[in-house]
Amino acid sequence: MTEQPADAFLAELRAIVGDERVVADDTGMASYLTDWRGRFTGRARAVVLPADTGEVAAVVAACAAARVPLVPQGGRTGLVLGSVPDAGGAAVVLSLRRLNRIRAIDPANRTMTVEAGCILQDIQEAAGGAGMLFPLSLAAEGSCTIGGNLATNAGGTAVLRYGNTRELCLGLEVVTADGRVWDGLRGLRKDNTGYALRELFIGAEGTLGVITAAVLKLYPQPKAALTALVALDSPRSALALLGLVQERCGAALTGYELMSDFCLRLVATHFPALPKPFAARHPYYALVELSSNESETHAADLVASSIGAALEAGVARDAVLATSSAQALGLWKLREHIPLAQAAAGKNIKHDISLPVSSIPDFIAHTDAVLQSAFPGCQVVCFGHLGDGNLHYNVAPPDGIGHEDFLAHQARVNRLVHDSVAAMRGSISAEHGIGALKRDELPRYKPAVELDMMRAIKAALDPLGIMNPGKIL
Amino acid sequence: MTEQPADAFLAELRAIVGDERVVADDTGMASYLTDWRGRFTGRARAVVLPADTGEVAAVVAACAAARVPLVPQGGRTGLVLGSVPDAGGAAVVLSLRRLNRIRAIDPANRTMTVEAGCILQDIQEAAGGAGMLFPLSLAAEGSCTIGGNLATNAGGTAVLRYGNTRELCLGLEVVTADGRVWDGLRGLRKDNTGYALRELFIGAEGTLGVITAAVLKLYPQPKAALTALVALDSPRSALALLGLVQERCGAALTGYELMSDFCLRLVATHFPALPKPFAARHPYYALVELSSNESETHAADLVASSIGAALEAGVARDAVLATSSAQALGLWKLREHIPLAQAAAGKNIKHDISLPVSSIPDFIAHTDAVLQSAFPGCQVVCFGHLGDGNLHYNVAPPDGIGHEDFLAHQARVNRLVHDSVAAMRGSISAEHGIGALKRDELPRYKPAVELDMMRAIKAALDPLGIMNPGKIL
Repeated sequence: MTEQPADAFLAELRAIVGDERVVADDTGMASYLTDWRGRFTGRARAVVLPADTGEVAAVVAACAAARVPLVPQGGRTGLVLGSVPDAGGAAVVLSLRRLNRIRAIDPANRTMTVEAGCILQDIQEAAGGAGMLFPLSLAAEGSCTIGGNLATNAGGTAVLRYGNTRELCLGLEVVTADGRVWDGLRGLRKDNTGYALRELFIGAEGTLGVITAAVLKLYPQPKAALTALVALDSPRSALALLGLVQERCGAALTGYELMSDFCLRLVATHFPALPKPFAARHPYYALVELSSNESETHAADLVASSIGAALEAGVARDAVLATSSAQALGLWKLREHIPLAQAAAGKNIKHDISLPVSSIPDFIAHTDAVLQSAFPGCQVVCFGHLGDGNLHYNVAPPDGIGHEDFLAHQARVNRLVHDSVAAMRGSISAEHGIGALKRDELPRYKPAVELDMMRAIKAALDPLGIMNPGKIL
Repeated sequence: MTEQPADAFLAELRAIVGDERVVADDTGMASYLTDWRGRFTGRARAVVLPADTGEVAAVVAACAAARVPLVPQGGRTGLVLGSVPDAGGAAVVLSLRRLNRIRAIDPANRTMTVEAGCILQDIQEAAGGAGMLFPLSLAAEGSCTIGGNLATNAGGTAVLRYGNTRELCLGLEVVTADGRVWDGLRGLRKDNTGYALRELFIGAEGTLGVITAAVLKLYPQPKAALTALVALDSPRSALALLGLVQERCGAALTGYELMSDFCLRLVATHFPALPKPFAARHPYYALVELSSNESETHAADLVASSIGAALEAGVARDAVLATSSAQALGLWKLREHIPLAQAAAGKNIKHDISLPVSSIPDFIAHTDAVLQSAFPGCQVVCFGHLGDGNLHYNVAPPDGIGHEDFLAHQARVNRLVHDSVAAMRGSISAEHGIGALKRDELPRYKPAVELDMMRAIKAALDPLGIMNPGKIL
């Protein structure tokens, strides 16, 4: 660590967490200041790494007393600049990484109590070790923390069956903006004793308080999960297939992902070693996962009968059923490699949007046409969690235009796509949040009365405005 | 209607909703002022019956301008005095009953948009008519309204599988305390664009604003639902059976109700025509419902195999499987007649509590002992939604003491039971809410920091304090 200037405030932080846990030199701070996609680097007065909830509370109280803004940070895998400080350099980054204990597992209540800094994958594994399932699953699970998942109400691939992070949390421990500890670590399925504070902190992106621990819901481990890739004519067929499978399989449907042909061609180009399930090309594909708590045979029956019915009814053009877990993994890899293939092809303009599921076909048709009219030849990388109405609808340049050059049109592309979303009563951020990245877009799409209520709540719970300023509002 | 005194404020309300929709005479108001259980009658300045959201907003704005408190009211079936005015007589009762339109059903999105005054059963039937299920189900469904269900985050018998009312709602329309309309009627499964205002209004019992409409989630109709009554040694066996069935059947488990032998004897005494499933007596019983989206055969297989395994493992003492829907109805009637049998036996001291599911056996043993020590010979009517950790743990007098006389001990009984709940990190109101009835108990069981945050939010969203004053806080 390089020599620091005398600073009474930092000395106070050091007295709380220990000298080594206050990082104030540029080299030491660097990895905490740049966002995951490498698009932005902020500045900070220091990075503080408390060890437990008591230290977090003391740090927040010190910041409140000194009117120093705080930026809570987990695994720093967010995509909307929610967990990095701005360029001003006045803020302290509060890293929750050292709060990484699994405090308790209660198998008969199907809950576990974890600290905010636990890595999602470690939680999944601890649940698995106790014979249960924590279903939250997303690309960054090897490095994101549950505190960040809660602060952003993370989604992922299991939302269709198990809900967003919000639905997987029964209780919270929170350090409030004035440095008090709220013990709301309840493991209750029903509790109607006042306002939904838990819900308010979930998804607030650290702007109302700091989540330090949570009680999570666990589920029985399915005995089997089988995957099929189904070739389809159109998004409308994908919707029809979704309805058919839900009708026949109910909660056994645990995954339903849509991919356009362009997505799979992109993957084939950049990852030629991955499987190519169909000899022919088809306009769209759905990745369908069915799980059974009973047996592998039961799961196989569900897949065969529902996909069989879809083929018979002409809803599906063709289908490949994975007959081994290796094959299933191969099909899922196609889906997971879409963002990687995109990145390999060059930067493009990303959108994380949601719509009523029933509006997806019209949205795609309408927005594709709007974009073609504005940017003839542009290419849409359209994939996502169709069962939740959540599309990653990304726009790449026409052939002959460079990816970097095309980024100059980002604001206009965003406007066209998000206006189309709003016209169909959708959301401009389905699972990533608002952060600093989409903050300026929010007033265009949120009713004024809603923004007013959000501002009133912010002022009520963080009257000094020190909690993650410049994010969301 | 009798002659009214001149009153400029009431004239303003009449100008908004029409003369006939402002009721200010004692006879006309009577049915709006007394709570469901007939325990309390309040007073009001008038009862107002707006026809639509615009009229609600105008009424609230008029009340805000005149600083007149408002009591939103639905079907008036609440159990905690949440929807009746206090004795002061200053408040206006705002009945939502005329907002009773089903605005839209979107089968492909599995949602319906309904107004707050819709009766729950009408919503269930409309969903059924469209081939889908709205799963919220509770005793008052023939007269309670969805607005009240949302305002109290109602529970019921399907929570284990489908969640509380909170989990069944995707969007809200709300009239704020200053008379503006917030259109949050989104039908989205994922939407991370700011604070969880929807969640905040749900369960706030009308103290933050008036819910006027909602987007509800629909589910596929199960193809079959089969019921078994299982005889058990103890609450601990009931917990073991629950774990076994969840493990084998997953989401197919759609109901799991616990009943003590005393409950069933009470029902047999007061409703001798109802079925008596077992020749012998057993300490406890679990009512188990398993549903299948596939077929009746599949549901029957699930029941036979899981209950069979429980008998084989010695977890269950005996079991009766309903082999017809008439038989299933008979078993459910036993459960539903417990409150009626209690009422027939005389008033008793009721508790609507929840606990971590794993703590239920210890809670019952401990609290039974505490009560026997304080009131030797008292009788506990213990039943409820074990799968959600929710017990209706009601206390009847010892033989020889009159039910009315025993009510004199209500405060002490409540204290003993609720202190026992709190010691095990449970909730003193699982599904009924706080209202006016439990308001004074709340500070004993809620952390001060939580109450402070609730008060700050109340002041932020209802700065004049006109929304259902005296409820919750």
